[in-house]
Amino acid sequence: MSNIRDDKPFMRRALKLAARGAGTAHPNPMVGAVIVKDGKIVGEGWHQEPGELHAEILAIRDAGERSRGAHLYVNLEPCCHFGRTPPCVHSIAEAGIMRVVAACADPNPEVDGKGFEILKEAGIEVTVGLLEERAEELNRAFLYFVKSGFPYVTLKLASTLDGRIATHSGESRWITGERSRRSVHRLRARADAVLVGVETVLKDDPQLTVRGAGSGNQPGRIILDPSLRTPLEARLVEKAGDGRTLIVVGNDVSESRLEPYTEKGVRLIKLPIERGRFSWDQLSRGLVTQGIIHIMVEGGGRTAAWFVKQKCVQRFELYLAAVLLGEEGVPSVGSLNVRSLTEAPSFRIVRTRRLGNDIHVTADVVTEVREIDGETG
Amino acid sequence: MSNIRDDKPFMRRALKLAARGAGTAHPNPMVGAVIVKDGKIVGEGWHQEPGELHAEILAIRDAGERSRGAHLYVNLEPCCHFGRTPPCVHSIAEAGIMRVVAACADPNPEVDGKGFEILKEAGIEVTVGLLEERAEELNRAFLYFVKSGFPYVTLKLASTLDGRIATHSGESRWITGERSRRSVHRLRARADAVLVGVETVLKDDPQLTVRGAGSGNQPGRIILDPSLRTPLEARLVEKAGDGRTLIVVGNDVSESRLEPYTEKGVRLIKLPIERGRFSWDQLSRGLVTQGIIHIMVEGGGRTAAWFVKQKCVQRFELYLAAVLLGEEGVPSVGSLNVRSLTEAPSFRIVRTRRLGNDIHVTADVVTEVREIDGETG
Repeated sequence: MSNIRDDKPFMRRALKLAARGAGTAHPNPMVGAVIVKDGKIVGEGWHQEPGELHAEILAIRDAGERSRGAHLYVNLEPCCHFGRTPPCVHSIAEAGIMRVVAACADPNPEVDGKGFEILKEAGIEVTVGLLEERAEELNRAFLYFVKSGFPYVTLKLASTLDGRIATHSGESRWITGERSRRSVHRLRARADAVLVGVETVLKDDPQLTVRGAGSGNQPGRIILDPSLRTPLEARLVEKAGDGRTLIVVGNDVSESRLEPYTEKGVRLIKLPIERGRFSWDQLSRGLVTQGIIHIMVEGGGRTAAWFVKQKCVQRFELYLAAVLLGEEGVPSVGSLNVRSLTEAPSFRIVRTRRLGNDIHVTADVVTEVREIDGETG
Repeated sequence: MSNIRDDKPFMRRALKLAARGAGTAHPNPMVGAVIVKDGKIVGEGWHQEPGELHAEILAIRDAGERSRGAHLYVNLEPCCHFGRTPPCVHSIAEAGIMRVVAACADPNPEVDGKGFEILKEAGIEVTVGLLEERAEELNRAFLYFVKSGFPYVTLKLASTLDGRIATHSGESRWITGERSRRSVHRLRARADAVLVGVETVLKDDPQLTVRGAGSGNQPGRIILDPSLRTPLEARLVEKAGDGRTLIVVGNDVSESRLEPYTEKGVRLIKLPIERGRFSWDQLSRGLVTQGIIHIMVEGGGRTAAWFVKQKCVQRFELYLAAVLLGEEGVPSVGSLNVRSLTEAPSFRIVRTRRLGNDIHVTADVVTEVREIDGETG
């Protein structure tokens, strides 16, 4: 009989293997599996990309005959449905695995505990919940999408300590330092797509690519552009040949105006517009049909404000440069129509750390009413 | 012969004793002294307030005859001039101290290494520089004032993650949480005075007192109020009976208008005004003559901006609440007239930490041109 102290190092290993799928496994979850016999790892596997074998199967193959009577550690409930690959639970039972330790259940309605049930029915001992928080953090975008049906939205902002993203003349490219830039690129590599408003394209002409570590995983690039003002010469259009630039335009933009963009490889989605803006309901459906379940919103301030107001931001990644620009600077977040502090969108801080001379804050959105517990006066 | 490893614990103890003078020793430096014989502490002392005995003398008295042949640890160079008390260096030599270990020199032109020289001439071994950074941090206001002749200015801001200090309707009292509030009160207790602009008095009617720990050390309260708009009913005026409320007004405010304030105990300084504003040169001189060498500026945004523009802020204490208010919110820092990012006032981050669900950032001003080392686009 194993205890939790014995189990933890193997689950940590499974999580580490799972993380190798960052940027490639999506829209599938990142999964790692470890097979342990007599206290020793005899097989390992991780899910690389959709269509490829699942982590459990790879680990079983790796272990071969040693799977018989062994323990399997996996960070997500093994699947029990026929997808592109046969269900893992059957292979686990066939391989003679004695015990399965899983970090968390798969909320996918086709699985959602059924995987564990089938394993138990096959006489396999099942332990669930080990390092659950870490496992949920790793696959938070997948888990959120499976539960809600909406893409997971990370809002990234880089601003000064007084909340400015550019001087009033628009100069913005050098606010945060090298280490923050590298961190942003790592985040991009883990998203399905990076999204900006057309104003940012017009002002900064960004590339939104991953450079440095993780540059093998280039996320898609999305421009929200109701009346199609993106210049044909924009860098995001120029590089659309890879099929990863998507422009979301209003329903009323004529087909003839779209043509030069599609010729360059740009993918276009038309959506209805209300009061000059898309609705998150419709936009999210459009993104999901393109296989995009995790987007990183990178500004500017009006786009950030729109996502915050739609209450569709789950995570906030804020990079603060130790600089002040004063009230003439461009605000990091546009109009939120907040009338009182109790209405203000609030966050739970997940982590805060220094990155060179910048500060990186990771926070999750809080949907409950914020507790008021102090005064400043 | 002692080595640094043996010395450090005793200097740490001296620094700890010195810190007991926080909020009371000023405008004198905080000094702690430890006398060690045969590896054991035989005497301790710390400077409590101006006019009281210096730390070294108290430690020597505490050690008595055991001072002979002992080591003295002190965080600041012992004085060699007659002030309100006789010079310490003589008492140290007389007591038969064999070796003095000091953390840092006293830049006061009347001391500035002369203390060490006299000790050496008396045949005492002198070691300088142990835990120097910590010692300089502890007495940074005193050291800055002695070197520059200007008061040390700490700028404190409490804002949302997007740099807002209030909703557009002015609601601001509850932005940061309880732990941040306690931290601010601890900072106040270490300043000679807390300063706000008259706009903050009109909007928030603050008390600017120290509540909770350290409440024995109430700093002075300063209002910058060029045309004397502070209401007679303001809480800072109502409590002026303790002689610790100071209003700085313009030269052209008539004596008759001042009278009702002085009757309530308010101290007033008249200063010339240029383009609606005081000059830091004149204001600082006015404060120094009142014995104020460390002020904490607590806003609002226009006052913060004025101090930043005057380049007289040394330290920045920023409390960030995990909330967004959007561009309608009141900016944390007013107009800075920054035209390009290279002109932006920049800081070196000293510390960043979580305080409940807030973030507390401590940063020092950087006078050099900021290094540009990354891009965000």
